Amino acid sequence: MSSDFDSTIMKVIDELKKEGFGIVTDIDMKETLKKKIDVNFRKYRILGACNPKYAYQALLVEDKVGTMLPCNIVVQEHADGRIEVSAIDPMASMMAIENDKLGTLANEIREKLRRVIENM
Amino acid sequence: MSSDFDSTIMKVIDELKKEGFGIVTDIDMKETLKKKIDVNFRKYRILGACNPKYAYQALLVEDKVGTMLPCNIVVQEHADGRIEVSAIDPMASMMAIENDKLGTLANEIREKLRRVIENM
Repeated sequence: MSSDFDSTIMKVIDELKKEGFGIVTDIDMKETLKKKIDVNFRKYRILGACNPKYAYQALLVEDKVGTMLPCNIVVQEHADGRIEVSAIDPMASMMAIENDKLGTLANEIREKLRRVIENM
Repeated sequence: MSSDFDSTIMKVIDELKKEGFGIVTDIDMKETLKKKIDVNFRKYRILGACNPKYAYQALLVEDKVGTMLPCNIVVQEHADGRIEVSAIDPMASMMAIENDKLGTLANEIREKLRRVIENM
């Protein structure tokens, strides 16, 4: 794992791309919290990753699945300088929507995100 | 509920603002699916809403809560012209992260999003 925040972000984006995910949203929480409520927060980015083929399949089986899209990956820098990368578990989050057909898709997406995290 | 897609979006944004949420992400799935995999899809927007005070509190009790942020509201137009607005249930989704302290916060956010949907 890189010790540099920005290079970790680049590596995450690269690994996501290998699994067919593009970045469709990017929230800088440090910047947002400073701007909106004048709070100093550590480096914290929320990358929203979308694999359009999977998103389309998921939308066909459950029209409200968009409430769970995109799949978020968080890159944050802790006080000790350690950089942590976390991904949503689509199996857990998509189960919030009651539709059994999503299970297989969610599991495939989970495996892809797991590989991304493992390769960091 | 408005019969016009764009005015519904505006109304959603307005109601969210009343509850302290700003829009931090906005995904046009119709446009994304056309561009990325050349599929024709109906009007489908995913608005990512963030209440910075609640987001900050949530981050303090659970550093990985960013994987569940922002709170998504989906506005979609069905084949019969009906426009549907759906919001994530933060109680269900945040429970995917195992942290009991999030419960109270998630419940407050759920009530806010419920009012948004009820006012549509």
